[in-house]
Amino acid sequence: MTSITAEELSSRFGLPLRGDASLSVGGVATLGSAGAGQLTFLANPRYRSQLAGTRASVVVLRAEDAADCPTTALIAEDPYSAFARIAALFEQKTAPAAGVHASAAVDPSAAIDATASIGPFVSIGPRTRIDAGAIVGPGCVIGEDCHIGEHSELVARVTLVTRVMLGKRVRIHAGAVLGADGFGLAMDGGRWLKVPQLGGVRIGDDCEIGANTTIDRGALDDTVLEEDVRLDNQIQIGHNAHIGAHTAMAGCSAVAGSARIGNYCLIGGGAGVLGHLEICDRVVVTAMSLVTSSIREPGEYSSGTPLMDNRSWRKNAARFKQLDALTRRVTSASLQSASTQAADKPAADKE
Amino acid sequence: MTSITAEELSSRFGLPLRGDASLSVGGVATLGSAGAGQLTFLANPRYRSQLAGTRASVVVLRAEDAADCPTTALIAEDPYSAFARIAALFEQKTAPAAGVHASAAVDPSAAIDATASIGPFVSIGPRTRIDAGAIVGPGCVIGEDCHIGEHSELVARVTLVTRVMLGKRVRIHAGAVLGADGFGLAMDGGRWLKVPQLGGVRIGDDCEIGANTTIDRGALDDTVLEEDVRLDNQIQIGHNAHIGAHTAMAGCSAVAGSARIGNYCLIGGGAGVLGHLEICDRVVVTAMSLVTSSIREPGEYSSGTPLMDNRSWRKNAARFKQLDALTRRVTSASLQSASTQAADKPAADKE
Amino acid sequence: MTSITAEELSSRFGLPLRGDASLSVGGVATLGSAGAGQLTFLANPRYRSQLAGTRASVVVLRAEDAADCPTTALIAEDPYSAFARIAALFEQKTAPAAGVHASAAVDPSAAIDATASIGPFVSIGPRTRIDAGAIVGPGCVIGEDCHIGEHSELVARVTLVTRVMLGKRVRIHAGAVLGADGFGLAMDGGRWLKVPQLGGVRIGDDCEIGANTTIDRGALDDTVLEEDVRLDNQIQIGHNAHIGAHTAMAGCSAVAGSARIGNYCLIGGGAGVLGHLEICDRVVVTAMSLVTSSIREPGEYSSGTPLMDNRSWRKNAARFKQLDALTRRVTSASLQSASTQAADKPAADKE
Repeated sequence: MTSITAEELSSRFGLPLRGDASLSVGGVATLGSAGAGQLTFLANPRYRSQLAGTRASVVVLRAEDAADCPTTALIAEDPYSAFARIAALFEQKTAPAAGVHASAAVDPSAAIDATASIGPFVSIGPRTRIDAGAIVGPGCVIGEDCHIGEHSELVARVTLVTRVMLGKRVRIHAGAVLGADGFGLAMDGGRWLKVPQLGGVRIGDDCEIGANTTIDRGALDDTVLEEDVRLDNQIQIGHNAHIGAHTAMAGCSAVAGSARIGNYCLIGGGAGVLGHLEICDRVVVTAMSLVTSSIREPGEYSSGTPLMDNRSWRKNAARFKQLDALTRRVTSASLQSASTQAADKPAADKE
Repeated sequence: MTSITAEELSSRFGLPLRGDASLSVGGVATLGSAGAGQLTFLANPRYRSQLAGTRASVVVLRAEDAADCPTTALIAEDPYSAFARIAALFEQKTAPAAGVHASAAVDPSAAIDATASIGPFVSIGPRTRIDAGAIVGPGCVIGEDCHIGEHSELVARVTLVTRVMLGKRVRIHAGAVLGADGFGLAMDGGRWLKVPQLGGVRIGDDCEIGANTTIDRGALDDTVLEEDVRLDNQIQIGHNAHIGAHTAMAGCSAVAGSARIGNYCLIGGGAGVLGHLEICDRVVVTAMSLVTSSIREPGEYSSGTPLMDNRSWRKNAARFKQLDALTRRVTSASLQSASTQAADKPAADKE
Repeated sequence: MTSITAEELSSRFGLPLRGDASLSVGGVATLGSAGAGQLTFLANPRYRSQLAGTRASVVVLRAEDAADCPTTALIAEDPYSAFARIAALFEQKTAPAAGVHASAAVDPSAAIDATASIGPFVSIGPRTRIDAGAIVGPGCVIGEDCHIGEHSELVARVTLVTRVMLGKRVRIHAGAVLGADGFGLAMDGGRWLKVPQLGGVRIGDDCEIGANTTIDRGALDDTVLEEDVRLDNQIQIGHNAHIGAHTAMAGCSAVAGSARIGNYCLIGGGAGVLGHLEICDRVVVTAMSLVTSSIREPGEYSSGTPLMDNRSWRKNAARFKQLDALTRRVTSASLQSASTQAADKPAADKE
């Protein structure tokens, strides 16, 4: 894609146009930094003040912002989605060639579609199948009995250990590890006994899994991500966890073993979900919150305390250690106050 | 292992049998999903209601549950441990061949036992020794002056940077990095000065280290894990930390530099231990708690606040910022109340 | 470096000497473990009691501690920095040979300086440039349009995905991933739509990046680390974040997208910074704190609650859920108390 006119964008993406339809763009940039020949967008109201001064040639925005646009506008109900589709035109990436790189170590029992691309220094284990159009980037290790669905991509240095089944169009970023042993231990005569992890991992169509994220395989049944689950970087998913369709989790969040998260949930960065819990559909957990019991109502949930200057924090945090005592004292004082005032005699603090 | 009778399991594992000793099993499954020809177990009381309806052929359970078992029962004091031992019979894994893969890059001064297995795309540095029966999976990088003890296994893409010594039967999962430089910095004239990290890492026998976990090497002395330490995925162990025998740490927990954790501790997921602290034996730290001072008594420790709906949380969290003031007010009011009631005159809020 | 006299150290590092200038040292160790022929240092007052008993040959310390030193002393204003410089003399590391390892897979359009060292199983993509003296260790994957500045080092198994620009003397530890897609998603008709990530990553001179740390590339503009930023292991930096010069972040901390952190900040282990915030220069955030709004004043900031035994914690934490109600009650009671005492009649709890 070198250049495209506003008119062509309008027609290709079904976006009404205002202004000079002949302006053409060859790239995208932010509202503040875009120049002539670039397209930008306005979605977040906090950036509206930058609209009048933009030097972009074309701006994707909502109808109500169009009057303030100093250049060609493309009108969208959801400018961010519309921009995402247009920006994809300008994504430049060298597509790897189909075929297996000469250096790859492929088990003879593996089945690799002729249109798949297997990069350098890739290992592929027994009975693994790789479907049409799939891309396995440099340095990936695919163990035994795995399956990579059509047009899925493992960017680089991804490991699928054992019994990992990927749907179609799954994208896994560098350093992710799927299918490692779940953390199953039994204390036995003063030493840990390892519990065999005999399940696998199943990843639905259109999932995306971030860099250095880990998803363990199940102990007996599988660990499951339903379709269109989106995981950011450095997320940990314990064995036998089940993540519902269209749920998105931000970086460094974690789900312990056998927890079950519903559809369309949003889990904030660094948040944690304890094992064996259930979270229903459409739950939002804010950053660094810990879910310690099942959630049965949609909504937004939080734990933690606000950030303070350290001196104030120390004073307040120290008082947290006496919060139960304080509460009892207040409750008791209220009761005493009532009885005192009724009986008109002094009360001792009985706490 | 294709199939084994209940009788043979009873005798091999020393588990008393009730019911038809001739039933045979060829696999394992959960109580709820097991079918004919499969073995299952009942350990957690929350699943007891599923026992009567199980379609498994053999169930491992406690003596007190045997009467309710609709099929052959194997009696164990600890059904989970007994199950773990039996399940290991059914673990299928292709053992890698002994020898060094043709693609591996091995320094001439490295010493590799003939019975060890070195996979494809493995690098092995100067003076490193690899003992009998050890497995180094695909894509591992072993630096200089390392030692991998007998029957230890590095699953895939593991890095041992420098001076990392593994005991026997150590298992390290994909993506783990042991022996990277500790985070040692001195501020020097407005710029950071790197402090050389001259120590190593010592890992005791039977330790297990999870995927993408990192264990830095020591600054002067070594970072140490004693025997039978079990680390889940994405754990961070700072330089010169010392973890006692049989301690287990759940995913995403972290131990800062020079901290010392005792034996038989359990560190919850996402929990943190600050540097230079000591934690005695048999301490449990719950998930996402932060240990900010040494712990000298065994027991369970926690920090944090409970999860709430976000609206309630906002109100309560805002009040946390005035908790010290609130406490002073109550204390002051109580004193005033006592003096007021004694002297019978109104008190002003002096806070 | 096999051995060096105290006299030579004194002159080379400009440190005044007290005691026998002819003593020589061949290594370094801690104050407690150093023996004859070793050098140690005293910086942290908590170790001062070990000084009188040290068996080291040479001790680097402050002038005020010299009188108590039983052996040769080198006087430094900042003993830790001075020690760091001296210890570097004793760091032994096999320097990799210049040139490209025979196994490396290098795109023909890549430009690699003849003095750079490219290790085994390294992939290098189109149009990437690698400058003089740079080291790319075993198993690294460098994608397209990257640049590795002079004397930078990628230890092993590092991934630079796309458009990652490293300055000079940057050091990146094993398993780190720079330049993966930022986590950009738009909800579109009930499914996630991926927003193209068209920016890159720019890393300033003298930065250090820990093992398994991830730094995403920007959506439109770049993700930036200014010079001399120091990141520990397992840190997550979201797309378009900007980290100021000389800032240091401890292990497992995270910065969400588009956040901007100033110069000379210290971010504690496991701490989090939400997206789109700004933190000014010289801010300290303590371990596992969450920054939820911009910080405009230098200083130390914290969130969280203190660690307690679990029984006490449960009681106090439960009360946190009623902290707002408690505060209202106290406030109301105080007002009532004042009015009661004035009007001398009983008040009902109106809360």
